Amino acid sequence: MTKPSLEGLLSRRLEGMGTSAIRDLLSQAGKKDFISLGGGYPAPESFPLKIIDDLDKIVKDKYGPSIRQYGATEGYRAPDGTVPLLEELPNFLKRPNRNIEVSPENIAITAGSQEALTILGMMFLDKGDKVAVESPTYLGAIQAFSPFKPNYIELKTDEFGIIPENLDLVFTENPDIKFLYTVPTFQNPSGRTIPLERRRIVADTLKKHAKFAVEDDPYSELRYEGEHLSSIKSLAPDNVIHLFTFSKTLAPDFRIGGMVASKEIITDANMIKQGLTLFTSNYNQAMVTEYLKGGYIDQHIPKIIKLYRERRNIMAQAIDENFPDIFKYTLPEGGMFLWVNLKKEFIDLATMLNMKKILEEAKRSGIGFVPGAPFFARSNGNEIAMRLNYTNQGPENIVEATRVIGEILQQNLSEISISAISF
Amino acid sequence: MTKPSLEGLLSRRLEGMGTSAIRDLLSQAGKKDFISLGGGYPAPESFPLKIIDDLDKIVKDKYGPSIRQYGATEGYRAPDGTVPLLEELPNFLKRPNRNIEVSPENIAITAGSQEALTILGMMFLDKGDKVAVESPTYLGAIQAFSPFKPNYIELKTDEFGIIPENLDLVFTENPDIKFLYTVPTFQNPSGRTIPLERRRIVADTLKKHAKFAVEDDPYSELRYEGEHLSSIKSLAPDNVIHLFTFSKTLAPDFRIGGMVASKEIITDANMIKQGLTLFTSNYNQAMVTEYLKGGYIDQHIPKIIKLYRERRNIMAQAIDENFPDIFKYTLPEGGMFLWVNLKKEFIDLATMLNMKKILEEAKRSGIGFVPGAPFFARSNGNEIAMRLNYTNQGPENIVEATRVIGEILQQNLSEISISAISF
Repeated sequence: MTKPSLEGLLSRRLEGMGTSAIRDLLSQAGKKDFISLGGGYPAPESFPLKIIDDLDKIVKDKYGPSIRQYGATEGYRAPDGTVPLLEELPNFLKRPNRNIEVSPENIAITAGSQEALTILGMMFLDKGDKVAVESPTYLGAIQAFSPFKPNYIELKTDEFGIIPENLDLVFTENPDIKFLYTVPTFQNPSGRTIPLERRRIVADTLKKHAKFAVEDDPYSELRYEGEHLSSIKSLAPDNVIHLFTFSKTLAPDFRIGGMVASKEIITDANMIKQGLTLFTSNYNQAMVTEYLKGGYIDQHIPKIIKLYRERRNIMAQAIDENFPDIFKYTLPEGGMFLWVNLKKEFIDLATMLNMKKILEEAKRSGIGFVPGAPFFARSNGNEIAMRLNYTNQGPENIVEATRVIGEILQQNLSEISISAISF
Repeated sequence: MTKPSLEGLLSRRLEGMGTSAIRDLLSQAGKKDFISLGGGYPAPESFPLKIIDDLDKIVKDKYGPSIRQYGATEGYRAPDGTVPLLEELPNFLKRPNRNIEVSPENIAITAGSQEALTILGMMFLDKGDKVAVESPTYLGAIQAFSPFKPNYIELKTDEFGIIPENLDLVFTENPDIKFLYTVPTFQNPSGRTIPLERRRIVADTLKKHAKFAVEDDPYSELRYEGEHLSSIKSLAPDNVIHLFTFSKTLAPDFRIGGMVASKEIITDANMIKQGLTLFTSNYNQAMVTEYLKGGYIDQHIPKIIKLYRERRNIMAQAIDENFPDIFKYTLPEGGMFLWVNLKKEFIDLATMLNMKKILEEAKRSGIGFVPGAPFFARSNGNEIAMRLNYTNQGPENIVEATRVIGEILQQNLSEISISAISF
């Protein structure tokens, strides 16, 4: 015996975790002449390179070499003892798209909101614990929670998100649920937003059952039209752990996000984070602090919105023109995705269409998108739905990719008709 | 019922995790006029600010805006399809302080080596699984592994680290051990290094029992004297998962580290990392790539070594002059720490001295250090040992802090004598 065998050595938590469809797809995304509508990527043209250079100068002048040192898990502490990002964030959270009133002690800083999801999984979930999730839900949350082997309970949703009566029923039938995970605004993948009135009922339902919600909100700054809605956190402050990120409003590479919760939860979160990654980059915290403080965010976001609104409209029109009439989509008022699925009256076609085959054909034509399956916690493997990202491609590519996918869908549909006729 | 109670809601993995002595201490570190020998912090003067500015220009010119985008979990992929850091790292790993021959497919990039420790914990450890660790061992590894509730088996060590006969015995008595965790070079906290001959026996023992070791090596570049030693990985390539970091050789804030292992383990590591934090900063990966490629590391490291060698010597002399004669330390040939503990013949004093009281008195005098207890996986809570960091303070502060600690030790010792006499 010399070489150890991995068999029997890996933790039970790894059982059933495999490479996902999205990983396979993303590995194609860098290829030349490949048009990916796959990732949840911002437009590279939206990154404020000039602002980043200005911030870099400010940070170097203001913070000095200590910015390159190890930092406290709780957040970068300036030589004067203050924690600049924690002190700036309450202003950011108060903006009308969140409307949250909190103190610095209620905030944990994390490496993107993905790390916050991992921390919450570690904090709350033992094997078999119940988590309520939307159907569909954000696949990154499933990836963060699944190593802790929870039992997902899928909530019914419509074009306005969670159906409150169903949430009430699920809480009543499962009083041991650990928390609800929800993306209320411009949801990934569906693009839909829970309206204010329904948010109030969700908040009241949380209070009625004394339950926590994890409210993941990466997109609410990116509203192209309509009024900003208050977060569920603002409607049920004691019952909601709220997540934010600067990946969509500054740039993903800074890896700055965070969590808003009770002081008790924040203390535990920081203790867990110390074991996970020790601390979050001080320099990047300082960059975000100055981005907020200097009002750069208010110059910058309108430019992103203008860019994305146009791309959303172009994609919506291209779908209208090219996709078979059996599909529908929700036109989102913001965010980064169009979610295309079958109209109710054609739902029977779901068993006849093969989404894997459709995606394979698209990839062979140099086009990528994410199929529906990975967004369902309890997937049947062939959900007939597509998440199409419109932010990371220019207008021409959006039109071309949508046209090609439309053609493939038409072709697959006509094959069904033929085989149906031949019976 | 409105507000959810955390009682009964937290995962079982959180039981027994509390705020640690080191957390309490680090929270003091930023205070004015407080001299901390506590953290494992590099000297801020060692950060190559001019090189960082040069690298920034190179990275912006060479990599363009895509550097601010989401990146692949496996590593930043340049527009030409290459993964620059992964392709540069084999040269870095081949240097004589590691002597490791590998391909890019054997390397995972992580947010500092702390994230690599977490990934390994998630990959291998279920509740009660056995892990062999040195006594003392790196407390950050304990923090990373403990949420998965392993059972630690402490190995006997001397001034040359692991005692091979004891390792053989522990493997024989515990054939189900998941892995050995070791810091062979300039260990944190003890400063000691496993000599080459003993490394060979450790490697053979791993092979004999078909066991894995996790070899954590943050410090081997920082050798002030003596010859570089090959890593254990180079002596038993199939049996060792090797960790590296740029926190001590560039600056901690970049959060770039990684893991070297079989392709199979690297694939699993990247899958787990995707759930944890999605990806590691592309920009920081590019900065490290150019730091290595441009030979900046070879200009820079000799400067760090010169600075640290002087500080180590100053601290050693100050201990010789100020500490009671019952203490000893190992003079490390590199790294960042002096470990002070009782001479064998005075070991009985351990039950009479109170380390918590000694630390409290030091803190009241404005001096911090880390007591021994948190570095023992199975601590009695009053290990009479101190980890003293000499890299993060200038010569005057090192002398002053050492003098004050020495005085407090003398004082506590004389109280024991008096109380012994009064019996």
